Amino acid sequence: MKNTTYKVKKSDEYLTKAKEVIPGGIFGHYKYAIRESGPKFFSKSEGAYFWDLDDNRYVDLMCGYGPSILGYNHPEVEEAYKVSADKGNTVSVASPVMVDLASKLVEMVDIADWALFGKNGGDATSLAVMIAREFTGKKKIIKIDDGYHGVAPWMQEKNRPGIITSDSEHVLKVKWNDSEALEQLLQKHGSDIACFISSPYDHPVSRDNSLAEEGYWKKVTALCKKYEVLTIVDDVRAGFRINLKGSNVAFAFSPDMICFGKAIANGHPLASLVGTNDLKKAAERVYFTGTQFFSAPPMAAAIATLNELEKADAPSVLIQYGKKLNSRLEKVASDKGFNLISSGIPSMPYYRLEGVTFETHIKWIDECVKRGVYMLAYHNHFISLAHSEEDIDFIEGAAKQAFENL
Amino acid sequence: MKNTTYKVKKSDEYLTKAKEVIPGGIFGHYKYAIRESGPKFFSKSEGAYFWDLDDNRYVDLMCGYGPSILGYNHPEVEEAYKVSADKGNTVSVASPVMVDLASKLVEMVDIADWALFGKNGGDATSLAVMIAREFTGKKKIIKIDDGYHGVAPWMQEKNRPGIITSDSEHVLKVKWNDSEALEQLLQKHGSDIACFISSPYDHPVSRDNSLAEEGYWKKVTALCKKYEVLTIVDDVRAGFRINLKGSNVAFAFSPDMICFGKAIANGHPLASLVGTNDLKKAAERVYFTGTQFFSAPPMAAAIATLNELEKADAPSVLIQYGKKLNSRLEKVASDKGFNLISSGIPSMPYYRLEGVTFETHIKWIDECVKRGVYMLAYHNHFISLAHSEEDIDFIEGAAKQAFENL
Repeated sequence: MKNTTYKVKKSDEYLTKAKEVIPGGIFGHYKYAIRESGPKFFSKSEGAYFWDLDDNRYVDLMCGYGPSILGYNHPEVEEAYKVSADKGNTVSVASPVMVDLASKLVEMVDIADWALFGKNGGDATSLAVMIAREFTGKKKIIKIDDGYHGVAPWMQEKNRPGIITSDSEHVLKVKWNDSEALEQLLQKHGSDIACFISSPYDHPVSRDNSLAEEGYWKKVTALCKKYEVLTIVDDVRAGFRINLKGSNVAFAFSPDMICFGKAIANGHPLASLVGTNDLKKAAERVYFTGTQFFSAPPMAAAIATLNELEKADAPSVLIQYGKKLNSRLEKVASDKGFNLISSGIPSMPYYRLEGVTFETHIKWIDECVKRGVYMLAYHNHFISLAHSEEDIDFIEGAAKQAFENL
Repeated sequence: MKNTTYKVKKSDEYLTKAKEVIPGGIFGHYKYAIRESGPKFFSKSEGAYFWDLDDNRYVDLMCGYGPSILGYNHPEVEEAYKVSADKGNTVSVASPVMVDLASKLVEMVDIADWALFGKNGGDATSLAVMIAREFTGKKKIIKIDDGYHGVAPWMQEKNRPGIITSDSEHVLKVKWNDSEALEQLLQKHGSDIACFISSPYDHPVSRDNSLAEEGYWKKVTALCKKYEVLTIVDDVRAGFRINLKGSNVAFAFSPDMICFGKAIANGHPLASLVGTNDLKKAAERVYFTGTQFFSAPPMAAAIATLNELEKADAPSVLIQYGKKLNSRLEKVASDKGFNLISSGIPSMPYYRLEGVTFETHIKWIDECVKRGVYMLAYHNHFISLAHSEEDIDFIEGAAKQAFENL
């Protein structure tokens, strides 16, 4: 492997152009990811790779922040999309594909007796909270300290731009993995609390990801039941990468609702909320809709995606791959005198260099990216089924050179 | 034209199946539209038509509640989608297509100096409010009494299922076309008010639609300016059917931001917020994002849609068509001893039978639908460029028979 690094001239030129017509040039989470030496725009993508505007190829360890679980441009998914799109997209009555997808989710996901659809993970989390309030007649929400459930005002910190205090007036916070603190909160506010919302494990930014401690979820669900508080799993990020029946199944607990998004349609815009029969009537009463929610082809793409994931037994394949990738990277680090910590579920690994400054860690990531492995310094990564053994070799080679250039 | 009516047996069977896995069977605005004798699911669509599961053809006067502005499955739009999709959908870095679409909107829309993107109209309206709060440092919103800006909790009535009082604590309401009431509200709360949000004309459900009175918008924008309140036009529904530069241009006023959705990509899920340079920095500070927001092909479809709309001078064609349709339907009604009132912009006509009960009006609509014209009793309709002279003849024939069967 030659020790050459990428140039990103065309990306930079396009970013300059972008800044004229888009606030910040690139907005949202993509903006935070911009690095001087990194790619800003893609020209094409296929399987585990994308190419930037300068035609540099990247082994993509971000997978579009999750959606690409089968790999980019998966033939079965794209074919299912096309067959559905030829019939119609957003039409004045619903598509039967919506029913077929709901049936598929009900069949596949352990706790699911029904499904509703939106476009983005945040649609599902906001809807879940509304249903919890309707069902319980209570107002307050408990969430994990820096748990992320979308950008809706109730979810953002009070001091964030555009957010006002009343937006999260009824949002309480608790530390991850701290069932005692949760119990205290429930003792104090239980009669006001509609739901506890959390990802199945803690995957914050800029911090090691953290799995549930033994017995945590069992205790949480028992406490929630005791205080008549609904349990909502935000599986938008981890969904389909831990267990196809719902990530909760891997941790042996049963929530009342699960939010899905990201990987559900392998990159086609779709989100879903599923829940138990107890909540079906409340879910029917809540008014939640959007013109674009009924676009049929992403739902057809979702059915194809879920079928492919089942066929491949995707979560175990992805987790095995992640384990191998983690140990290979840890070994490379160790060989070069560094200590790389992998955390979270191996199919969504978060990396951190232990015992060096965060700047050194960032520099290492930058050097990997410049050598064709797309990674982020502050965010968990994502594995797809398209990632190959050869890709691990390539990643390893780039990582090694990156260490050598610190 | 034979006086035969459609059977919807297969739609009904599918609805039964749907109720097992989706709360209510069909959710959101599609659920309200369900009529015993009407279609529930589509099997295909093309141009101005969709076919239901029983293979009945409908001349579609709802256009998917707006998206289908060029007609279903428009070849140029679908081709642009495909070219973009072949390159990649939601990828780990942004698509240059996003920049191209922002440039297109900035070039086309009068007040637009920048654009941001979401999936659904409600993303754009919520973002607009957040930006207004960030820019002004003020909290309160003024909206029109029953103006609809999506299902976000701040937008829903306090007594709606799943909604809590604090959700709309800072939302004030004013009557449409009542600039004096607005002035009083501004006098009282001006120092707390961040924005005034309204559609360019009043298009509520279950009520005649109403254009702005002479001088209304001029007065509104002057008042807002005086009290340092931003003006947000929710053009999600009317956008591109009145004036491609923004519906405000037709009414000779300039808002600070405009929300687009529905028709922007002819049925592909996309929404956009555009605004003036003054707000660009505030827009950059507000954190607003979503994994599925960056799906590139709907943006490519939007560029193609906007180009086609410009080529066709779409708004004037649609308005002319609507005028003709309205007068033909009014004539048929009159011939049969009824008084049909058309209101709103002719490219989005709202119909009401005057001097009869609402039940009779509903029955007339049902009879039209049973004869192959898809209409709603309580909602404005939508015209697309695919609607032809022959379609008017067909609609007229069905409407005539519908009157004869009241």
